[in-house]
Amino acid sequence: MTSTTMSGEIAEQPAAVQRTLDDLRRRGAELRALAGDRRHVRFLARGSSGNAAVYGRYLLETHAGCVAGMGAPSVATHYDAALDLSDTVVVSVSQSGGTEEIVQAQIWAAQHGARTVAITNDAASPLAAASDIALVTRAEPEQAVPATKSYTTQLAAMVVLADALGPTPGALVEIADAAPGQISRLITERAGIDEAAERLADTTETLVSGRGLVFGTALEAALKLEETCLRPVRGLSYADLRHGPIAVVDDEHTALLLSAPNGPMTLGMTDLVHDLRGRDVSATVGVGGDEAFAATVDVHVAGPDLPEVVAPLALVVPVQLVVEALAQRLGLNPDAPRGLSKFTQSEGHPGVRS
Amino acid sequence: MTSTTMSGEIAEQPAAVQRTLDDLRRRGAELRALAGDRRHVRFLARGSSGNAAVYGRYLLETHAGCVAGMGAPSVATHYDAALDLSDTVVVSVSQSGGTEEIVQAQIWAAQHGARTVAITNDAASPLAAASDIALVTRAEPEQAVPATKSYTTQLAAMVVLADALGPTPGALVEIADAAPGQISRLITERAGIDEAAERLADTTETLVSGRGLVFGTALEAALKLEETCLRPVRGLSYADLRHGPIAVVDDEHTALLLSAPNGPMTLGMTDLVHDLRGRDVSATVGVGGDEAFAATVDVHVAGPDLPEVVAPLALVVPVQLVVEALAQRLGLNPDAPRGLSKFTQSEGHPGVRS
Repeated sequence: MTSTTMSGEIAEQPAAVQRTLDDLRRRGAELRALAGDRRHVRFLARGSSGNAAVYGRYLLETHAGCVAGMGAPSVATHYDAALDLSDTVVVSVSQSGGTEEIVQAQIWAAQHGARTVAITNDAASPLAAASDIALVTRAEPEQAVPATKSYTTQLAAMVVLADALGPTPGALVEIADAAPGQISRLITERAGIDEAAERLADTTETLVSGRGLVFGTALEAALKLEETCLRPVRGLSYADLRHGPIAVVDDEHTALLLSAPNGPMTLGMTDLVHDLRGRDVSATVGVGGDEAFAATVDVHVAGPDLPEVVAPLALVVPVQLVVEALAQRLGLNPDAPRGLSKFTQSEGHPGVRS
Repeated sequence: MTSTTMSGEIAEQPAAVQRTLDDLRRRGAELRALAGDRRHVRFLARGSSGNAAVYGRYLLETHAGCVAGMGAPSVATHYDAALDLSDTVVVSVSQSGGTEEIVQAQIWAAQHGARTVAITNDAASPLAAASDIALVTRAEPEQAVPATKSYTTQLAAMVVLADALGPTPGALVEIADAAPGQISRLITERAGIDEAAERLADTTETLVSGRGLVFGTALEAALKLEETCLRPVRGLSYADLRHGPIAVVDDEHTALLLSAPNGPMTLGMTDLVHDLRGRDVSATVGVGGDEAFAATVDVHVAGPDLPEVVAPLALVVPVQLVVEALAQRLGLNPDAPRGLSKFTQSEGHPGVRS
């Protein structure tokens, strides 16, 4: 029996991520055979699935040495561009597997020479049927509107994909096996969650930042805050933030900053805390990071103890808990946010989920 | 003698875009020789230059049949990923040509097998020196902090690039020759500009949307509003908007919607006006579009009469005029926004411009 609430689905993630890793790790040889000597990977996705793809894109490039990027669905659906994808694997990501534009774009990609992979939570979906290989996540049905377990299981699928196409098959999935235990610990301990929600409730404007392998997590944090807490938020890398948008920061902003506990981005994230303070930001809430980062932010939320390369699988979980707590505090229903429904389409129907 | 104000530099654009088209159209054969049989194009850029690259990416795919995407500079500068770019042309875009991370990423790309093109406003810049071909825009020195003429001349360089790699060299540049005249007309007539600024001043939250070839223009409009008018804004495609973020729309939001006068996106942009109205948006301000779009929005700002494929070269100009008028109305200095300077770097130095 699965849960029907956001908080219940958050709690199911350790098991869901482990199931997904265990199911999909057996598909490595099949993925390698499909890719052959193709070293270009193009992701098609939107919303939370798109944020999972952003992680996949950094992971494929930094771990697997594939040239990876995000494709624009409209290039297929609206422009029917004459691209040659005969050196490319196209990976389309959709929880439902039923979002029409993604299914159409996947069919278009195959017609243009791509080998195709679906990452979806529904083995019987049109997207799975339209793809050479379907990596079916084991989130089980997700009832609450904000994606939680469907998102982290998509990240697990990204690990399997990068592992299969990378230099030492099996190694990355083994590292990711530590993620479910870390997710459990973060959910049980809830270190810093309620204080973070309290601080975020103090201001109406929120700014979210992360970079590199954690950039997708920042985008997902921003999307969760927007759709669940009805806050206009931007998720930006710290480099993009410094490139102009940082000008808007003032004492009406709280910053939510995400960092892995190690890797080349932790130092820059700590520097960003100082920058934001110099611009009189109301408060800095930091999730994860190293000791220096934790000591610098105003409120610290515990993150996973994992290598940066797989940290996103668990780092988003405290963010989900903060968002859920903030929604409750604001008197909003986190399970069914205003103006969104779980399954609709992109074109002419508001509130699309894929 | 060039201007030193945002409004002065806006007015210089017809001549700057024409000069750039005329200078760069002579480089077509050289660009084709450089690309050879490479059909992958990867852009590296941030800020306004990044928004110009987003146009370039759609243009390369829809007009030239190249598989194009945005690269993440950090994959080079922080992760030093082992990518094989021997089938790729990397195009780095930087007004100053001096942003260190872009120069570093360009050098990294060349070391990994890429052929490299710079689009920069400074022929003597480190980026130009680090690239196989430098497409030097003819904006002349830009003094005001918000990029205007440097941005539209970058768009002109994108047209030259797509034209060179496309099926019928010369044809696209010829179509773009109509853009300077359209820019002049829009600046002279200012149709709808002041009314749009007035409406945008009514609410503190702004939402910007456009899609496809106009998506980069929407991102640029959002960035201009953020850095010049100090408003937190998101620029989203209508598909992404419907995918969750539309939930935040309420009567405290004004929507700024951008559309070409023709092409496959105009109908969807008009549908979006109706959707937003159903969510009690305070007002819809539409720039460009067709007659149905103009008749549907609350305030209409005239756009260019150009084919969609080159419409972005002129469509951003009325947006610049609206932003400039809004900044004046809000008592802000559009030429030197708070907290930003014209030339700094991404890492540890806020307010980077490239």
